Amino acid sequence: MPLKPIEHADAAPEVRAVYDDIKATRNVPDVNNFWKMTAHHPPTLRRTWESLKEVMAPGALDPLVKEMIFVAVSVTNGCDYCIRSHEAAARRAGMTDAQFGELMAVIGMANETNRLAKGYQVEIDEALK
Amino acid sequence: MPLKPIEHADAAPEVRAVYDDIKATRNVPDVNNFWKMTAHHPPTLRRTWESLKEVMAPGALDPLVKEMIFVAVSVTNGCDYCIRSHEAAARRAGMTDAQFGELMAVIGMANETNRLAKGYQVEIDEALK
Amino acid sequence: MPLKPIEHADAAPEVRAVYDDIKATRNVPDVNNFWKMTAHHPPTLRRTWESLKEVMAPGALDPLVKEMIFVAVSVTNGCDYCIRSHEAAARRAGMTDAQFGELMAVIGMANETNRLAKGYQVEIDEALK
Amino acid sequence: MPLKPIEHADAAPEVRAVYDDIKATRNVPDVNNFWKMTAHHPPTLRRTWESLKEVMAPGALDPLVKEMIFVAVSVTNGCDYCIRSHEAAARRAGMTDAQFGELMAVIGMANETNRLAKGYQVEIDEALK
Amino acid sequence: MPLKPIEHADAAPEVRAVYDDIKATRNVPDVNNFWKMTAHHPPTLRRTWESLKEVMAPGALDPLVKEMIFVAVSVTNGCDYCIRSHEAAARRAGMTDAQFGELMAVIGMANETNRLAKGYQVEIDEALK
Amino acid sequence: MPLKPIEHADAAPEVRAVYDDIKATRNVPDVNNFWKMTAHHPPTLRRTWESLKEVMAPGALDPLVKEMIFVAVSVTNGCDYCIRSHEAAARRAGMTDAQFGELMAVIGMANETNRLAKGYQVEIDEALK
Repeated sequence: MPLKPIEHADAAPEVRAVYDDIKATRNVPDVNNFWKMTAHHPPTLRRTWESLKEVMAPGALDPLVKEMIFVAVSVTNGCDYCIRSHEAAARRAGMTDAQFGELMAVIGMANETNRLAKGYQVEIDEALK
Repeated sequence: MPLKPIEHADAAPEVRAVYDDIKATRNVPDVNNFWKMTAHHPPTLRRTWESLKEVMAPGALDPLVKEMIFVAVSVTNGCDYCIRSHEAAARRAGMTDAQFGELMAVIGMANETNRLAKGYQVEIDEALK
Repeated sequence: MPLKPIEHADAAPEVRAVYDDIKATRNVPDVNNFWKMTAHHPPTLRRTWESLKEVMAPGALDPLVKEMIFVAVSVTNGCDYCIRSHEAAARRAGMTDAQFGELMAVIGMANETNRLAKGYQVEIDEALK
Repeated sequence: MPLKPIEHADAAPEVRAVYDDIKATRNVPDVNNFWKMTAHHPPTLRRTWESLKEVMAPGALDPLVKEMIFVAVSVTNGCDYCIRSHEAAARRAGMTDAQFGELMAVIGMANETNRLAKGYQVEIDEALK
Repeated sequence: MPLKPIEHADAAPEVRAVYDDIKATRNVPDVNNFWKMTAHHPPTLRRTWESLKEVMAPGALDPLVKEMIFVAVSVTNGCDYCIRSHEAAARRAGMTDAQFGELMAVIGMANETNRLAKGYQVEIDEALK
Repeated sequence: MPLKPIEHADAAPEVRAVYDDIKATRNVPDVNNFWKMTAHHPPTLRRTWESLKEVMAPGALDPLVKEMIFVAVSVTNGCDYCIRSHEAAARRAGMTDAQFGELMAVIGMANETNRLAKGYQVEIDEALK
């Protein structure tokens, strides 16, 4: 009963156009399942791709840092698909094993101290106001 | 009725020792409220500080990247105290306005696509297994 | 080692009574695994069913809207079982593909803007106080 | 130290253009603080507004349903600003007190049963696969 | 514009009956704001109170343990109101400062290791299947 | 492509030392996958184990209560691995079926009322300030 991924051969022209832009932009032979599923609602496919392309492009932050931030959010939200696909993207962007290890360590400590700050109901310091 | 921050003057020796190490390590005149609250349980204060000192030290990732990852987790968890204190730490580590803007944009997109991946129940791609 | 679903034939009378009420109320041949698992604690089974029956009944909001709200919460919490079972319930209540697509799009944007509002620490507008 | 909202009079032309479009689209005298804060990163302001305008427009779901879905996500994420601003938007779109009461009740039950499904590690039913 | 708490003197008879039962059950002079707000939807007030009364009653777990579990959930969800009211309830049930300190420490570590388990995509051990 | 668990035979001496301490402390024949994965970053393995050993030791709270708090956090975060491993640990520490049932019921109610408190934007009571 769940929806199935829409392959390029079966896609409407507006969907194919997005797939083709993803493939050209990322230099990959096929788009991954995330795009083949959001393709069930073409406006969401198009808007999400255009937004992601803009946001993840090199800018004041380099692509590796952006992918690691993406992993940090995905781990905190507990999204397995997102963790795997963005860990893969971070590795393609050059993330080393040592960097991955430190990324995980920071994510872990941030989640721990976030809860301690809430649990102790810490007031904002004057210097931070 | 809630607990109050424990100031240096009122702290037990084991707590003062941690405060002093934080001040020396970070070169700050006083510790912030997070430490003054966790000080109500000295083993938690000591362990959290030692862990954080180790995890946030320069390594395979530089301190600015680590602070931005911390902000990404804190925003996703919705911890106001943590957002403010680690945004401040990131700015002290050199984060520019443009970098902050891109950090927020990536956090926003990651949270959106995390939910789309879940909502569409996207299967892991063969290439990611 | 994990618990197994309790089937009707193996259930205590108080559990069977709840199963029978669920089947009669929803006009289904069997209850789903959620009920067969919470049946391990009969007071939780009974209370949860009675609460859900009351809350999800037609009222000021129609059942389709209620099921879509249920999906929005389940996606945001990342509960796969809940997403699938309530997407199915929403479709049985008449949700079209176009409605599902817009539901996902709204959930995605809400999650993105929730994090932007937190990240920028937006103050409540005077008009909203 | 935190950022301040950027008022129309102090805004760059590209920011003013977005503010003006928000005011015209929603028929309001001023934009709220969410926009005045994201304006610190004009590409985020523009992209977020264009996305939100597209997603929240009447379509297969009417605006009231969309705003209630937005509230459901915001409550589940615990974003106070978002809860208040989208509850207000839902009321402007016609939400009655009775509808608000049922919305809250469904959000509450969904969060409870999401956790029960996780806690009991409920397996997906054959009929849902 | 937000809703205001409904005081006993202004409450409908069905609401007063719930308030009176809360006061008698807990031996308190007044109900707290949580009940005065959910009273805007009397079925939610009644159902939530009856459920909570049943769930939090002494049983296989004693009331102090139940309140500490409530705090653990509330901290993890980041609900300030809930943290404060259930920390107060736990203290009334006998929680010592040392127990509160350990409660916070466990909550912190659980949140850290939850994220590490996700981040490393740890597979379920054979012995746990 | 994902990382694989590191078995004792393949582990570096510093990793083996941690494995051996876990096995001795818990009196188990092998460490579980959580440790075999975090072993990819030995400082995280060592630090996490030392912290967990300290935090979960008997103290003002007994080990069963600590494991139930761990389960409450894990269910709320939706971490399947953590739910299973800490439910197993709680059962080893003596948790009965009735206690597990009440634990789940409290977790469920806490999550429901957390959202109602947020959704109704309940103000902190004077008595709690």
